[in-house]
Amino acid sequence: MKTVVWEKDQVVVIDQRKLPQTLEYVRCSDYREVAGAIRDMLVRGAPAIGATAAYGMALAAGKFCDLERSEFLRRMEEASRELAATRPTAVNLFWALREIEGVIKKQKDRKPRDIYQEILKTAEKIAGDDIETNRRIGKYGAELVPPSANILTHCNTGSLATVEFGTALGVIRAAHRQRKNIHVFVDETRPRLQGARLTAWELVQEQIPATLIPDSASGMLMKDGRVDLVLVGADRIALNGDTANKIGTYNVAVIAHENHVPFYVVAPTTTIDFEMESGDSIVIEERDRSEVTHIEGVPIAPEGIGVFNPAFDVTPAKYITAIITEKGIIEKPFADKLLRLKEKP
Amino acid sequence: MKTVVWEKDQVVVIDQRKLPQTLEYVRCSDYREVAGAIRDMLVRGAPAIGATAAYGMALAAGKFCDLERSEFLRRMEEASRELAATRPTAVNLFWALREIEGVIKKQKDRKPRDIYQEILKTAEKIAGDDIETNRRIGKYGAELVPPSANILTHCNTGSLATVEFGTALGVIRAAHRQRKNIHVFVDETRPRLQGARLTAWELVQEQIPATLIPDSASGMLMKDGRVDLVLVGADRIALNGDTANKIGTYNVAVIAHENHVPFYVVAPTTTIDFEMESGDSIVIEERDRSEVTHIEGVPIAPEGIGVFNPAFDVTPAKYITAIITEKGIIEKPFADKLLRLKEKP
Repeated sequence: MKTVVWEKDQVVVIDQRKLPQTLEYVRCSDYREVAGAIRDMLVRGAPAIGATAAYGMALAAGKFCDLERSEFLRRMEEASRELAATRPTAVNLFWALREIEGVIKKQKDRKPRDIYQEILKTAEKIAGDDIETNRRIGKYGAELVPPSANILTHCNTGSLATVEFGTALGVIRAAHRQRKNIHVFVDETRPRLQGARLTAWELVQEQIPATLIPDSASGMLMKDGRVDLVLVGADRIALNGDTANKIGTYNVAVIAHENHVPFYVVAPTTTIDFEMESGDSIVIEERDRSEVTHIEGVPIAPEGIGVFNPAFDVTPAKYITAIITEKGIIEKPFADKLLRLKEKP
Repeated sequence: MKTVVWEKDQVVVIDQRKLPQTLEYVRCSDYREVAGAIRDMLVRGAPAIGATAAYGMALAAGKFCDLERSEFLRRMEEASRELAATRPTAVNLFWALREIEGVIKKQKDRKPRDIYQEILKTAEKIAGDDIETNRRIGKYGAELVPPSANILTHCNTGSLATVEFGTALGVIRAAHRQRKNIHVFVDETRPRLQGARLTAWELVQEQIPATLIPDSASGMLMKDGRVDLVLVGADRIALNGDTANKIGTYNVAVIAHENHVPFYVVAPTTTIDFEMESGDSIVIEERDRSEVTHIEGVPIAPEGIGVFNPAFDVTPAKYITAIITEKGIIEKPFADKLLRLKEKP
């Protein structure tokens, strides 16, 4: 099952808001629909957002490739800006758009129709690479999973967060396929419940033993020695290792640290922001109050109450045991090692 | 607004499951209905449960007081056992039942009808004392609140968790009435959302500035220096200070400790279990999986997923800055000081 595919000149994505009740596909034939799908979180998860945005650029190119070249280039810039404005935190989005922009720049003297073909090829390559990347991450990460282990994870980092396979959940998948005796505790991940809705669904599908918990129960489990390691994804990793990820990741990291439970961040190197020294300058997206005050349209809080609903938090590097990438496992101190990954093939 | 009152030979309680949408009262005329109201969490909060159970014993006594004495005593024992079996963690429940049992024992040679009157008087005294106790707690606790402060709280410890006024929320109420410039961050408190449904509702009613957050956002706020102190309630406090409270309290405590944010437990001395040396032996209630898998009857998780749903966790004393009681503020080390509270008037 792929989260995003290019099919008959359309971008087809799973509407993840409907899961686990309904597996529904949405076909986008305009890049603005793709932008909407990212903004409204039909597609979410840093790597999936990156690939989807790249396909969005391919849609835009297909739409504008009959225009005169300068107009084509102007429209493509506009499309890129629009796609970039959908979500502010996940760096893979900007990375993918820069890849496409690079192609446009390099091919800018060719006919728009040829540029379109190159963009589409690049988008397909970004999506294909993501799957390959995740499988490598899984292979490296599974080495860190003991033969028998209880793993805690937060949010969704599975097939649904990537093009296919997953990052943190990809490691879990790989360990399970190696017939390791694993059991997964899944944080439900309020407010949008990606753990309950998506991760639990993926684990049930794969028949990997798993237990859903309220986010608040992770502490008790770690204190009682019932968690052997924590695996989480990332939306942006600064050069010093500070990691932005789903709200609550910091809570899990601090409690893991306090209880000497290894805490691993799992992400492709496209999640590393090579321009950012530390996590202090990461922009944190705030989402609508209704995500907290309503569930399935039903109010669960009184009118008139204030709401703070940040989508992500930043976990300082000191709480992170290692970062698992497709280029290997990076241990502390992260700074120079992360920078070196940029050049590493 | 009282959470539980005795009126026309009935125990009247607020059905807290209906809040914040509807303020609905339920009249119990049989002790078994009272037991049901506690079990099904129409009434919750350790002190409120204690007072409600005492009134339940008064209902039982009213029902059985025309029976012959030995039969009356037998039935009363049965009622006490039934009420004790409703919730395993909150010690105030057992404390209140022991108080009533003490009255029965002392009066056992009198006519059942006279014993009934004594039980009712004792239940009324337990309820009345709870209000007085909370006001004293509020007075002591408010001393710890700076003139201008951001306070984080978890679950509901307000009027709705007690007979009236509240413990941790009572301290907030008292500080607000002293015109301190306070603002409250309210953990929504999954899975039953007592923070979103009840605490937010009480704060809106009292016009105390407040912001609702997903439980997972507490870490980010404390890391960013946006919380000056944490106030939580307790369901049972062991002699060494270890405290059972709503699931997630431990998470907040560890993160507060890590960020040097004072963490206060607020509870009447009836919450102290003078028989229990440490928190290790506190029984933790596990509740139904549907509290996690469904919200308002709507499924939010796939069928076939395992669920772990503990109602409470235990926060080790080392994370607790002080315990605020109606007999004063107790600082670490707690052991002997808590024991001495037993005799203190």
